[in-house]
Amino acid sequence: MPVVTIKVTREGTTPDRQSVTAEEKAALIKGVSELLLEVLHKPLDSTHVIIEEVDTENWGWGGLPALEYRKQRSQ
Amino acid sequence: MPVVTIKVTREGTTPDRQSVTAEEKAALIKGVSELLLEVLHKPLDSTHVIIEEVDTENWGWGGLPALEYRKQRSQ
Amino acid sequence: MPVVTIKVTREGTTPDRQSVTAEEKAALIKGVSELLLEVLHKPLDSTHVIIEEVDTENWGWGGLPALEYRKQRSQ
Amino acid sequence: MPVVTIKVTREGTTPDRQSVTAEEKAALIKGVSELLLEVLHKPLDSTHVIIEEVDTENWGWGGLPALEYRKQRSQ
Amino acid sequence: MPVVTIKVTREGTTPDRQSVTAEEKAALIKGVSELLLEVLHKPLDSTHVIIEEVDTENWGWGGLPALEYRKQRSQ
Amino acid sequence: MPVVTIKVTREGTTPDRQSVTAEEKAALIKGVSELLLEVLHKPLDSTHVIIEEVDTENWGWGGLPALEYRKQRSQ
Repeated sequence: MPVVTIKVTREGTTPDRQSVTAEEKAALIKGVSELLLEVLHKPLDSTHVIIEEVDTENWGWGGLPALEYRKQRSQ
Repeated sequence: MPVVTIKVTREGTTPDRQSVTAEEKAALIKGVSELLLEVLHKPLDSTHVIIEEVDTENWGWGGLPALEYRKQRSQ
Repeated sequence: MPVVTIKVTREGTTPDRQSVTAEEKAALIKGVSELLLEVLHKPLDSTHVIIEEVDTENWGWGGLPALEYRKQRSQ
Repeated sequence: MPVVTIKVTREGTTPDRQSVTAEEKAALIKGVSELLLEVLHKPLDSTHVIIEEVDTENWGWGGLPALEYRKQRSQ
Repeated sequence: MPVVTIKVTREGTTPDRQSVTAEEKAALIKGVSELLLEVLHKPLDSTHVIIEEVDTENWGWGGLPALEYRKQRSQ
Repeated sequence: MPVVTIKVTREGTTPDRQSVTAEEKAALIKGVSELLLEVLHKPLDSTHVIIEEVDTENWGWGGLPALEYRKQRSQ
């Protein structure tokens, strides 16, 4: 019965993408479900995975909106 | 002061709908708030209910995106 | 596949209790699951309900810890 | 490593706005991160803040959708 | 900057244990962090994983407290 | 109606403490509620703050339980 929530910023893994792709989401779901089966013996069909994409201006880190903080860090 | 969060997939209850309707949301809010009044004696105006609709590709079950898992199950 | 989280303060409904009883928890679980069946046609066995009890000093309301705020309000 | 989640209704602070502005979000992120530094000595770069805007019809209060409840209250 | 929350019932994987062990928790943390590195290229040190153990009487499934539902199902 | 959740590890701010103190919790509640009043004009009595303390072995960072990761980082 595990419930796993994955919060990530809404961004693509390559410059031409604006968000996580359906394939990447499916890989996250598969990977997390198999991990819970392996480590805690939870049957696949008892695990729920919820992916929440958060706009970058809604995610703060280092006291700043995430993109500004990353820019500052990389300088 | 209860805070209730209801996460559901963004789907309609009939084939012509793409999401939960405003009427259905109001019924969930009313039902949950009355339940907390009845069971735990929480005044209606102290209960907050937050409904989060999750795109079906962002919800995993059985190691798969939810729609794929349902299709597999119904076979 | 709904996932419902109910956050309440860890308190009893009568003066001699320190927390929500097992019977009250079962009533919340039953009530929420039946509501989702009724309103959104979600099968009972697809709904998960998680009750989180929060110590009163960890719950803030009105800018104060919840018990202090209630005391202030009732004066 | 604190993780702070701020859930608010998707509304503007002035009648001409439909949602929280980027400036207001940045002010929330800054304020919360500095508070955790001041009170718990958490370094700014270890705090994550996630702002979740919730459509008003998805937020219930007083047993009603939030806008209806506010209207009723103000009468 | 992903934040992953894993909610599971507070139970052991063998009859002599009452809860998830520190080793199992470490395996979940490692597995989830590596998955996010692999699928979304998130650096290990940007991922936070929070494991929340929930008492079995606080987890509802099938309209019943989880242990009762499991008993009913296995009959 | 904002709901703010603050997740922190269960640790003291001085070596002789095992957890966040009641005074620190009250300061967090006050600070967050005033911030929402200032930035979004939310009345103090409409804001709820929930502080969740998480055991250090249940918090992962950098692919490791948090205390191990911190030790590694400080070397």
